[in-house]
Amino acid sequence: MNNWFKMIYLPLFLLFTLGKAQEKLIIGEKQNVFSKVLNENREIWIHLPKTYDDNTISPAKYPVIYLLDGEINFEYYTGLTDFIARTPYADIPECIVVGIKNTERTRDLTPTKAQKKSPVNPDVILFADSGESENFVKFMQEELKPFISKNYRTQGYSVLVGHSFGGLFAISTFLSHPDYFNAYVANDPSLWWDNKIMISRAKDYLEKNKKFPAKKSLYVSQADNEEQQKNWNSDMTQAIEEFKGIIEKNGSLNYKHSFFGGETHGTVSYPGNYESLKFIFKGFRSDIKQLAKNPKLLEDDYKKFSEKMGAEFTPSEAYLNVVIKFMKSNGFKESETYFTNLKDLYYSKK
Amino acid sequence: MNNWFKMIYLPLFLLFTLGKAQEKLIIGEKQNVFSKVLNENREIWIHLPKTYDDNTISPAKYPVIYLLDGEINFEYYTGLTDFIARTPYADIPECIVVGIKNTERTRDLTPTKAQKKSPVNPDVILFADSGESENFVKFMQEELKPFISKNYRTQGYSVLVGHSFGGLFAISTFLSHPDYFNAYVANDPSLWWDNKIMISRAKDYLEKNKKFPAKKSLYVSQADNEEQQKNWNSDMTQAIEEFKGIIEKNGSLNYKHSFFGGETHGTVSYPGNYESLKFIFKGFRSDIKQLAKNPKLLEDDYKKFSEKMGAEFTPSEAYLNVVIKFMKSNGFKESETYFTNLKDLYYSKK
Repeated sequence: MNNWFKMIYLPLFLLFTLGKAQEKLIIGEKQNVFSKVLNENREIWIHLPKTYDDNTISPAKYPVIYLLDGEINFEYYTGLTDFIARTPYADIPECIVVGIKNTERTRDLTPTKAQKKSPVNPDVILFADSGESENFVKFMQEELKPFISKNYRTQGYSVLVGHSFGGLFAISTFLSHPDYFNAYVANDPSLWWDNKIMISRAKDYLEKNKKFPAKKSLYVSQADNEEQQKNWNSDMTQAIEEFKGIIEKNGSLNYKHSFFGGETHGTVSYPGNYESLKFIFKGFRSDIKQLAKNPKLLEDDYKKFSEKMGAEFTPSEAYLNVVIKFMKSNGFKESETYFTNLKDLYYSKK
Repeated sequence: MNNWFKMIYLPLFLLFTLGKAQEKLIIGEKQNVFSKVLNENREIWIHLPKTYDDNTISPAKYPVIYLLDGEINFEYYTGLTDFIARTPYADIPECIVVGIKNTERTRDLTPTKAQKKSPVNPDVILFADSGESENFVKFMQEELKPFISKNYRTQGYSVLVGHSFGGLFAISTFLSHPDYFNAYVANDPSLWWDNKIMISRAKDYLEKNKKFPAKKSLYVSQADNEEQQKNWNSDMTQAIEEFKGIIEKNGSLNYKHSFFGGETHGTVSYPGNYESLKFIFKGFRSDIKQLAKNPKLLEDDYKKFSEKMGAEFTPSEAYLNVVIKFMKSNGFKESETYFTNLKDLYYSKK
């Protein structure tokens, strides 16, 4: 009797719990990746864009954004990418976001072994476990990126996003492995690290290579100087400005620096990440009303955009459906036919 | 045999599905509220802050943000509130966010019955179903707010957030029912509606009441004028500026207008919502380093803040725990004792 009860009760209980679970608002899934390089398990948070599982369109591929400090930034960041990728006025293509949760943050994100006295209490020595970012880059390049490409439909364009030590890591990776990502975002990067070692490395890079690589993007945001100096250290500000001076002299790189007067070190990532995406994907946005009169414009726009990005981008099937619907409902018959044919050309299911 | 199989198989299947569901990243839950006022079912998206279910602290109460166009804004908005409410440098208190999904958007958000020719095709008449916002306000005030207060731990401070028609709705509600919410946010509000009827209503309000109510906040954001004129209509811009002129003359209201040069009508909510929260909760942020030297500052800060807000705010238990930990780990013994006593005073579980 007791067993019978359990057998009936358990499924009912699970159905109830599951019923509640289906009412949850879900923005992603957790994956566990065991890293041989780091000899530990890493928790990875994956956000897939709105159209990823839309079975009315052909399976699409998406650029990938690798987001450091995943546990802090993942929620607003994935909301942001979906928000500004909305059609018909998308500012960026839909993206997969891969948030990386920290285990030993200082170990992973700093390029050299260095220490610092606590600004609050000089008896406390900070960052004793620093200096293994090269290992962490190796994990990303040799283990994480292949895992993502194998399990998700990715396009060959990728972005690395970091803040503070994560920003230091993004710039360090850009200087040591500029080919690993297409775009690098560093929000208020800790360029003061180890007597401003990134300044020396940037100079070394230019001495050896003359120019920074073309068709790569680098975005740096910077928080309020005064606030910075009050709460942390002025060498943060000084180092970022010195870095800016070196980078700006070199014209080949797609580079932008934004100074946010009203932000602190802890908040600057929110506007910084927004501005960085608008900057990296500048030229992506099409004007649907222009397309009504001149449908060929779309392919021209994408050709120019792909050229600038150094990677091929084509109009998504989801976007073409929006364009076709717009032309139809507003009576632009010629354009409707044009885009219907264009959709067949790209996404014919023959 | 078949029945036995089902009885064993079903729970296993459910366990498996449930196991997978636990690996999802969840930001909220859906609730269905049947509205007698609107005579329809409304889907409501609820986001609870990080500490809501933390059983190491006493159950806390939270301000509530009512977010219109929930299906578009909920993800980045809930990420935003959590992000800037992080301790120790929180810019806002932790908040519950209530996203309202649209059914008949134009019907619910517009204050009067009015029509407009489509700017794309003049044969198309837009907004035929407009003019029932008074009904929608009634639903919010008499049904939704009591539902939220009954089911969640809410503090008596609430914010209404809208964009475009939602911004028009926020301003319309502020003028007709200023007592319903403590703060109103209108991103690029459609103040051109019905021959700028909100301008007349704002003038009428001032004629009758002389002043706008004190201790209420109103934030208005505005997108790039040129972009606006190219893509939509110039009367949008003109009406917002006219409204600004009327409101600014009245000193009693906690009012801010932000113009975002680089934004379009479709994107302005992202920075607008961020700036609005910083504006509404200005004065909330405490400097933990100052508290080390002068622990009494915290209560002074909260007293001033509550006074400005017209509602009582006290330091949360979660924040006091962070402060106590900070004092302890940095050797500020006196302050540690002070805040331990303060915590007992507010949150003693006797």
